[in-house]
Amino acid sequence: MHSTTDNNSTTDTDNEVRSILWKEDHLRIIDQTFLPSREIYTTLSTAGQVWEAIRELRVRGASAIGIAAAYGLYMGSRDIADNGYESFCLELKRLSEYLATARPNIVNLQWALNRINSTIQAHRDKDTEDLKGIILHTANTIYDEDRRHCRTIGENGLDIVPENARILTHCNTGNLATAGDGTAFSVIAHAHLAGMIRNIWIGETRPLLQGARLTTWELQKKEIPFTLITDSTAGYLMKQGEVDLVIVGADRIAANGDTAGRIGTYSLAVLAAGHNIPFYVAASCSTIDLCHPEGSDIPLEQRSPGEVTQYGNTQTAPKKTDAYNPAFDITPHSYIAGFITEHGIIRPDYTANLPAAIQS
Amino acid sequence: MHSTTDNNSTTDTDNEVRSILWKEDHLRIIDQTFLPSREIYTTLSTAGQVWEAIRELRVRGASAIGIAAAYGLYMGSRDIADNGYESFCLELKRLSEYLATARPNIVNLQWALNRINSTIQAHRDKDTEDLKGIILHTANTIYDEDRRHCRTIGENGLDIVPENARILTHCNTGNLATAGDGTAFSVIAHAHLAGMIRNIWIGETRPLLQGARLTTWELQKKEIPFTLITDSTAGYLMKQGEVDLVIVGADRIAANGDTAGRIGTYSLAVLAAGHNIPFYVAASCSTIDLCHPEGSDIPLEQRSPGEVTQYGNTQTAPKKTDAYNPAFDITPHSYIAGFITEHGIIRPDYTANLPAAIQS
Repeated sequence: MHSTTDNNSTTDTDNEVRSILWKEDHLRIIDQTFLPSREIYTTLSTAGQVWEAIRELRVRGASAIGIAAAYGLYMGSRDIADNGYESFCLELKRLSEYLATARPNIVNLQWALNRINSTIQAHRDKDTEDLKGIILHTANTIYDEDRRHCRTIGENGLDIVPENARILTHCNTGNLATAGDGTAFSVIAHAHLAGMIRNIWIGETRPLLQGARLTTWELQKKEIPFTLITDSTAGYLMKQGEVDLVIVGADRIAANGDTAGRIGTYSLAVLAAGHNIPFYVAASCSTIDLCHPEGSDIPLEQRSPGEVTQYGNTQTAPKKTDAYNPAFDITPHSYIAGFITEHGIIRPDYTANLPAAIQS
Repeated sequence: MHSTTDNNSTTDTDNEVRSILWKEDHLRIIDQTFLPSREIYTTLSTAGQVWEAIRELRVRGASAIGIAAAYGLYMGSRDIADNGYESFCLELKRLSEYLATARPNIVNLQWALNRINSTIQAHRDKDTEDLKGIILHTANTIYDEDRRHCRTIGENGLDIVPENARILTHCNTGNLATAGDGTAFSVIAHAHLAGMIRNIWIGETRPLLQGARLTTWELQKKEIPFTLITDSTAGYLMKQGEVDLVIVGADRIAANGDTAGRIGTYSLAVLAAGHNIPFYVAASCSTIDLCHPEGSDIPLEQRSPGEVTQYGNTQTAPKKTDAYNPAFDITPHSYIAGFITEHGIIRPDYTANLPAAIQS
């Protein structure tokens, strides 16, 4: 079904990885399950292929998932017959519900689908072909906005990066997770261009090793100095005075600033607090979800125990070993020095300042 | 060189794993590099084979390494020609220096070798064959003492285990690390027999996965309920109120109570403190090293970056990735509620109470 290309060019006009890109009539992604050993590009031409790619983490990262879903919705809509506006909306809703099941707890996935459905609601006067064009246009807009937001987040983050910075980060928040330079990673990339980075400490991010497999790969592409660590080494590094700043990404931000992030983020926040190291979250405002007043309301994805008891196809723990494998944890807002967003750095009081940022 | 047996009996007269056992004229070990997928027993018949087994982590854990070194020294001494007492001592010293290089920073390795050399110093009147017999006898004594200490540590630890305990532990501190039921693991095993365990949370312990590979295997053998987690999940578990107690082992304890333990131990200590969860270290008094007034004096083993950039034989990070891979970290004494030893639970003031325990 999918056409794949090995060792395709990773870049377009500039020297930048494009992990997700609309190409005329299909979506091209880097299949992240093969990284870092192989750069395999996959063509997605149907909503079903997009669903599978999101489900199997071929495309991952909050923003990239939202973008993939938007284009997936467009590709699915191409098959909707011309039976009038109401029928079109119904089909679109059905398709959206289907795509949302790929990873039900990813806020950007639902956000992108809602945005397209809302946009269509404002175009009752258009015919079916026009509506399909509007969906593609909206997907392109989401993509372009994300690129702009990544750049602005990176620029805004420079305010909190010290000279000769040694920054600790977690998981993958860069080109592979967004349409642009990412969130936390964009701050690092911009700080590197400004000559401010001494070293990046990247936690391997068990169980799926997004730090070891993906962020290292991105750091190498941009020639940013870095050192890989196991996740449990972070505390000892902080103790030795080797970390100036922690910047992480977010999967969902509640109205009070409590933040769902990759499992391990909460431990890093507590450890940073214990060593008086500033802890920042970098995220696009689309990650803020005012429907959830606080972190305890956020549903968290539980993933298969096999991700912990196996690596690839190798069993590391004995058979029948039970494992607890939450994909995310919640970091209470009190640990977060600020949110680096496209609308600047949001400081406490978050309950007042997060809604204001979204509306600005 | 080594004879190996797959699926040999793991137990002797009782229902207990004997990971290391002297058999008439050779040492039999479980080769821990094959666990948990295969139980392979290896025969070590020379000092060189013992050196290799320690170096390559076929035998590991502070106590087990000391025991292996003691028997290794005996097996090496069998080849010493009968050239009088002074010559014997010189050869024994040379052999000891060689064995100590297998893992230079393991205190029990040096401790066991020193103990045998000191014992020999007290027997100037004996002939060479008698001296060899004394070495074997001392090795057997070290082995028997360790088994006794393990049992007593387990019994003493019951005082700090609550009913229905949910205990978090790290790395491997059980039958595979000692001649008996271990240190932290012995407390867990004894508490299980007393019907006090609700669940054991075991961290996988990257990079070498001693928790996922070895402790799970031991827990299964003893039918103790447990759940495996990635190391970075510990903080979030504590936050959710799922951890009553943390008990870990130690690799070296400084005179003031600062403790070198498996990398990640320090992070657990800080996280436990942040959640008001008691944090205990279980260890035999042979792990206390009064030569080091405090933790900052303890030399720490740095291991190959390849252990972090690979998972088993699979490369996980891109080639040329630099990794920082300390085998141990230092937990300051202020985080430690007590040391569970064969001489009871040692509480602060450690500077006064640790030396007293050794001399008791």
